[in-house]
Amino acid sequence: MRRKVTGLQNLTPLFRPVSVAIIGASGKPGKIGNIILKNVIACGYSGRIFPINPKADEIEGYPAYPSITQVPEPVDVAVIAVPARGVLPVVEECGRAGVKHLIVISAGFKETGAEGLALEKELVTIARRHGMRVVGPNCVGIMDTHTPLNASFAAGFPKKGKIAFISQSGAMLVAILDWSLTSSLGFSKFVSLGNKSDLDESDFIAAAADDPTTKVILCYIEDVSDGMRFLDAATRASRRKPIVVLKSGTSQAGAQAASSHTGALVGSDLAYEVAFRRAGVIRVRSMSELFDLAFAFAKQPVPKGDCLAIITNSGGPGIVATDTAEQKGLSIARFSKATLDALRAELPREASIYNPVDVLGDGRADRYRFALAKVLEDENVDAAVVLVCPTAAAEPGETARAIVEVARQVPEKPVFGVYMGGEILEEGARILSEEGIPCYTFPEVAVNAMGGLAHYTRVVQAKEDEPLPEYGGVDRERVRAVFKAAKEDNRLVLLGSEGAAVMEAYGIPVAPTKLATRAEEAVAIAEEIGYPIVLKVASPKIIHKTDIGGVRMGLDTPGEVMANFWAVMSNVQRSLPDVIPHGIDVQRMAPKGTEVIIGVTRDIHFGPLIAFGLGGIYVNLLKDVSFRLAHGLSLREIEKMITETKAFSLLRGYRGQKPADVGALVNIIARVARLVTDFPEIMEMDINPVFAYESGAQALDVKITIS
Amino acid sequence: MRRKVTGLQNLTPLFRPVSVAIIGASGKPGKIGNIILKNVIACGYSGRIFPINPKADEIEGYPAYPSITQVPEPVDVAVIAVPARGVLPVVEECGRAGVKHLIVISAGFKETGAEGLALEKELVTIARRHGMRVVGPNCVGIMDTHTPLNASFAAGFPKKGKIAFISQSGAMLVAILDWSLTSSLGFSKFVSLGNKSDLDESDFIAAAADDPTTKVILCYIEDVSDGMRFLDAATRASRRKPIVVLKSGTSQAGAQAASSHTGALVGSDLAYEVAFRRAGVIRVRSMSELFDLAFAFAKQPVPKGDCLAIITNSGGPGIVATDTAEQKGLSIARFSKATLDALRAELPREASIYNPVDVLGDGRADRYRFALAKVLEDENVDAAVVLVCPTAAAEPGETARAIVEVARQVPEKPVFGVYMGGEILEEGARILSEEGIPCYTFPEVAVNAMGGLAHYTRVVQAKEDEPLPEYGGVDRERVRAVFKAAKEDNRLVLLGSEGAAVMEAYGIPVAPTKLATRAEEAVAIAEEIGYPIVLKVASPKIIHKTDIGGVRMGLDTPGEVMANFWAVMSNVQRSLPDVIPHGIDVQRMAPKGTEVIIGVTRDIHFGPLIAFGLGGIYVNLLKDVSFRLAHGLSLREIEKMITETKAFSLLRGYRGQKPADVGALVNIIARVARLVTDFPEIMEMDINPVFAYESGAQALDVKITIS
Repeated sequence: MRRKVTGLQNLTPLFRPVSVAIIGASGKPGKIGNIILKNVIACGYSGRIFPINPKADEIEGYPAYPSITQVPEPVDVAVIAVPARGVLPVVEECGRAGVKHLIVISAGFKETGAEGLALEKELVTIARRHGMRVVGPNCVGIMDTHTPLNASFAAGFPKKGKIAFISQSGAMLVAILDWSLTSSLGFSKFVSLGNKSDLDESDFIAAAADDPTTKVILCYIEDVSDGMRFLDAATRASRRKPIVVLKSGTSQAGAQAASSHTGALVGSDLAYEVAFRRAGVIRVRSMSELFDLAFAFAKQPVPKGDCLAIITNSGGPGIVATDTAEQKGLSIARFSKATLDALRAELPREASIYNPVDVLGDGRADRYRFALAKVLEDENVDAAVVLVCPTAAAEPGETARAIVEVARQVPEKPVFGVYMGGEILEEGARILSEEGIPCYTFPEVAVNAMGGLAHYTRVVQAKEDEPLPEYGGVDRERVRAVFKAAKEDNRLVLLGSEGAAVMEAYGIPVAPTKLATRAEEAVAIAEEIGYPIVLKVASPKIIHKTDIGGVRMGLDTPGEVMANFWAVMSNVQRSLPDVIPHGIDVQRMAPKGTEVIIGVTRDIHFGPLIAFGLGGIYVNLLKDVSFRLAHGLSLREIEKMITETKAFSLLRGYRGQKPADVGALVNIIARVARLVTDFPEIMEMDINPVFAYESGAQALDVKITIS
Repeated sequence: MRRKVTGLQNLTPLFRPVSVAIIGASGKPGKIGNIILKNVIACGYSGRIFPINPKADEIEGYPAYPSITQVPEPVDVAVIAVPARGVLPVVEECGRAGVKHLIVISAGFKETGAEGLALEKELVTIARRHGMRVVGPNCVGIMDTHTPLNASFAAGFPKKGKIAFISQSGAMLVAILDWSLTSSLGFSKFVSLGNKSDLDESDFIAAAADDPTTKVILCYIEDVSDGMRFLDAATRASRRKPIVVLKSGTSQAGAQAASSHTGALVGSDLAYEVAFRRAGVIRVRSMSELFDLAFAFAKQPVPKGDCLAIITNSGGPGIVATDTAEQKGLSIARFSKATLDALRAELPREASIYNPVDVLGDGRADRYRFALAKVLEDENVDAAVVLVCPTAAAEPGETARAIVEVARQVPEKPVFGVYMGGEILEEGARILSEEGIPCYTFPEVAVNAMGGLAHYTRVVQAKEDEPLPEYGGVDRERVRAVFKAAKEDNRLVLLGSEGAAVMEAYGIPVAPTKLATRAEEAVAIAEEIGYPIVLKVASPKIIHKTDIGGVRMGLDTPGEVMANFWAVMSNVQRSLPDVIPHGIDVQRMAPKGTEVIIGVTRDIHFGPLIAFGLGGIYVNLLKDVSFRLAHGLSLREIEKMITETKAFSLLRGYRGQKPADVGALVNIIARVARLVTDFPEIMEMDINPVFAYESGAQALDVKITIS
C-alpha cells in the first residue's frame, strides 16, 4: 500500500511543537549538539526546551536530562544529534516517551552504503511502531519563522516571510539561508530533507500547501522518493500555491538501454519534465531563477493573464524587455483606445504611447505615475514592468514612490521595477524592494519573473482533468493468457500476432494478424481473414524486417501467399542464418493512411509514459513525439498531446488532403493508457505504424515487451 | 563603392586627441554644454580644452572662443552640443578650422523623421568634404579611460579596465556606466553610436580590435548599418579579441511576406544569427549574460578547450554546476589516472575524487588548494569552477587566497569562484574579485561564463575559410537572357523550364525540362529528351500543382504524352478556371533519390541566405533546414550545413540504405552560392526537390523569383 501524503495537520507538532528535546545537546561551543540547542533558544522559540545529555545537569541555562524518558513533560519534537550507532536506542526511547516527531541530524545512514541503509530502515521501523514521523537522517534540520523555531545546526535564522524552501541538499539550504540574509527575501519554513527515510518532498509540499504563512513553495530536489505520491501531492498543492522546483541531476542517469522506438526517444529527464507539467509544477533551470520567481510570487499577485505593459524612459531597454517577453511566451499588451487617447493627450508628442510606453529621457516621476496608472487601468493589461534609466531628469526615489502608490491601487496586477544603474538609483530600488515591488538591475530578469507568474496563471486556470471513461469490450483474461503463453515459451517480446491479440482484447482496431508456421496454414489464415495479404516474418530478434526481405505485401491469391511464404523464409535464412523465426505473421493488408506511432515506455518513478507522433521508419530520425504520463491521463490531455506534434499538421489535412479521424486516435491512446495501467508487466510498447483514416484508425504493427 | 572599415589608426585623434573643443559649452550647471565641459576637465584629460561660446569669455576656468575658427591651435575633436538647426554651420566651421573628428551630441536628426534625416545627410556631406569623421548625432559621446577622456554628457567616468563597450542606446550606456561603478567592472572605452550617420559599430569594432588597452569588445546594437562591412570587421576582429553582442529588436521586424518555402522558413532574426556565427561573434540574450561574459573575458585567459573541472564542498551545488555544464555544451573533464591517484591519496575516503571533486563539508582551505592544484595540472582539464558553501569548516578568505595562488601558477587555464552565501563568505568573494577571479553567488552563472570562453576558443581555433573555387562551365550570358526574357514577358517568377535553364547555365545537374504550349510540341520534346516523361503545368500562379491534377508521371509513349497533355490542361481549367497556364513543362522523369531542398532567400543586410534540408512536400512541416550566408561561404561550411541537418542522417544511409553522394550536393550548393552572388536580382529560389543518388544528384523542380 502506498503511504498517504502527510498534510500539515499531522505535522503541526513538528513545526509548532509545545516542547523540543535536543538529544546529544552539548555545552561545548562548536559541537553540533551545542549549535542546535543555541539555535532553538536564540530564535525566540517560546515552548519548553529540554537538552538531553547523560553527562550534564544543565546546558546553556536549561536543566539537562540523562534520557528523553526522564523528561517530566510530553515532548513533541526530538532533535537527534548523537553518532549514528547510538541513534536506534535513542529512537526507541523517544517512542516510549511519547515523542511525536523526530528530526535526525546524525549522518552515517543510507549515504554510507548498505550497512547504513539497513540502520536507516530499522530507524524508520522503530519510529513507525511508535507512530513517530522522521525528518532525515543526515539533515540540517527544520526552521519555521512564524512559530518561531530553529531546530537546525545552520548558522543564522531567516527573515520572516512567505516562502517555504524544501531542500534535498543541506549545504544548499545553508548557503541560501546565508545569502538571503543579505537580500530582502523572507521565508516561512526551511526544511532540510536529508535522506528522506520517512517524510519526503511530497509530505512537505502538502504541508506547505496547507500552511497559511506560506505563499510560494520552493524545492530543490535531486530525485523524488515516490513518483505517484509526488504527483498527487504536487497536483493538489499547485492549485493552491505556486510550486517552483529546481530539479538537478538531469545529466546523471544517462540514457536507458531501450529496445523500442519509444524507449529510445525518452531521455533520463523526460519523465520528470512530463510529470512536473502534469502536476502544475513550475520548473526552473537555475538557482537565480528559483529565487527571482520566489521573490515575485511572494510579493506579487498572480496575474489574470500574460499581457504585459512596459514603461520606460529609454528605447533600448524597452526593446530588450520586449524581446525577452516574446522569448518567454508573454504577450505585449495592446492598449485600448481609451488608454492610447489618454496617453496621447498627456504625454509629450515625441513619447511612444504604444507598448512599450516611452516617457522619454526627460520623464520625471509624475509622467511615470500617469503612464503606469493608465496602463494598469486598461483591462488588456495584466501586469507592468517599469524601466528607469539614470537620465538627468530621472527622479528615482520619487518615481519609486509613484510606482508603489499606483501599484497599491491595482493590487490584482503584478508590477515589477527595473532600475538600470548603480548608486544614482539606489534609493529608488530600495524603496521598491521594501514596499514589495520586485526590483532588478536588468530588464530580462523582471520579464522572466513575470513569465513565471503567467505560467502559474495557466496552472490555476486549467480545468481539472476528468479521468478516462471506463471503456467496454475489454477482455483482461485474454491479455493475461497471451502474456502467460509467451512467458511459458520463454519470450518477453511478444510476436506480432500476440500484439494484435492484445489490441483486440482492449478494443483497439488492429489489422487481423495470425501466426502461420507452415505455408498451408498461411493460406488457410489468408482465406479466413481475407485478401490482400501481407506476410511478415515473426521473430523478436529481427528488428528491421523489410530490410532483409522479411515482408511481402499485396498478395491476392492462395498461390501468391504460398509462394511468398517460402520466399520470406528463404530470404531470412540467407540473411540471418542463425535466427529461427517463430513463423510468419499473416495480416490483412490495410489501406494506406497517415502514419503515426503510439508508444509506451515505463519510468521507474512515474510509471508508463505514453508517446504519440509521426510514425513509420522515420520516427527516430524526426523525433516528432509528445509524451504524457498514463497516470491520470484525460481525454483533453490526449487531444493536447496530439495537437502539439507536427504529425497533427498532417492529420488535420496537410496540402489539401482530407483531415484524418483524430477522435479515433484519441480512443486508441486512451485504451492504450488503460491497458498499460491494468498490466504493470508491460514494459515497452510500440504501435508503429497506426494508420489514421478519414474515418477510423488501425494499428498495423504492434510490439510489446513484458517483464 | 562600399566604405572601408575605419581602423584605430584613423581614429586615434578621436580617442587620444591633442585638443578638444566643446561647441555649445556653457557655464550654467545642468546644461549639457556645461556637463560635457566639466566631464572633459574632471576625467583628467591632459590635452588642450577649448570651450566655444560666443557669449562668454571664460567657462569653468578656460578661455572661451566665440567660434571654432577663432581657436589659435589645431583641434582634433569637436564635441557639438548646440541645437540641431545650428549644427550645420558649426560643422562647416569645424571643417574650415581643420578639426579632425566630430562628436555630435545634438538630437533632432534622423530620429525625428524625414526633415531630420535630410539634415543628417547634409551634416555627413559637409564633414566628408572636410575629411572629418562623425560620431552621432544624437549620441551621449565617447570615453577612453586610458587617455583619459570623457567627451560625453554621462554622469560619472568608468573604472579603468579592458572592456570596450559600444552601444546603440545612449540610455543603456549611461545605465551600464552607473551600474559598473558599484561593481568591479573596468572599461577601456565607451562609445555611444547615436544615429550612426557616419562611424558605426563596424568602425568601432575594428578600432577596438586594434586597441592594445582593450581585451574584450561588447556591443549593444539594434541593427547593423551595413551587413557586409559588419561581417568583414567582425570576422577580422573576432580572431583577435572576443566580441560579445546583445542584439535586440529580434521581435520587431515581423515575418516577411514570402513566396518560397525557403523564405517562409526564415524569421526576421535568422540572418543576424547566421551572420554572427559566421563572423565568430558571441551572441548573448540578456544584459546579465553580456556583463558576466565581459568580466570573464576581461579577467581570465581563453581556455584551450571546453573540459571543465568542478571542485565543491557539497554535493547539491556540484550537481547543479554539472547540469548547467552539460546544458551549455561543456565537457565534464575526465581526470587522468595520475590526478585520480593523487586525489585518492590525499583526500578523505568519503570525498569524491571524480569530477565534481567533493572535498566534503569539513574541507578547509588546504584541501581546496590541493584539489585545485591537482586538477589544474591535469592536461584533460581546461578550466575549473570552485564552489564554496558556508559550512562550519569552510575558510572563505583563506580558501580564496589559495584559489588565487594556485590559479596564478596555471595562468593559461580559467578559474571561476562560486561563493554560495552572503556575509559569511563576503571576504572570500571580495578577495577573488580583486585578484581577477570572477566570483558569483550561483554555480550556473560561473558555468555559463565558462561556456562563453569555450565558445570563443572554438572561434579562434577554427581554420580560416577558403573561398569557393571558381567553377568552370558557367554561362552568365544565358542566365541574363533568361531573366531578360521573363521580364519582357512581365514575369518575376520564372517558369520551371527557365529555372532548369538557369541551373544548366551554372553547371548544376537538372532533369531536362522544356516548355510545351501544344500537345504536339510536348511529344516532340519527349522524343528529344527521352522517356519516361513527367508533365507539369507551367504557371507561377499554381503553387501545389499535384493537388489539382497538374502533374502526370511515368509517361512512356508519345500517345501517353499527348493524352496526358490534354488531361492536365483540362484538370487545371476545371480547378482554376481563371488561371491560364503558360503551357506544360515536359521533363524527363528522374529515378527516385533522397529528397532534399536547396533554397535561397535574400536578407536586406547580409545578402543571400542559402538553405539546405529535408526536401519534398514536408519541408515546411518538418523545418529541418540549416542556413548559411552565401557571402564568404566555403566548402567546409557547406559540408557543415549539410551534416547538421536530420536530412544528413538519411543521406549517409539510414536504415541500411546506401549512402548518398554528399559531394554532389556540396557542388550544387557551391554553384548556387556563386549564382546568387553573381545575380543580385535573384530574390528567392527553391530547388525542391533535389534528388541525391548513390552517385550524383539532380535538381527536379526549380523556382526562381527575380526583381
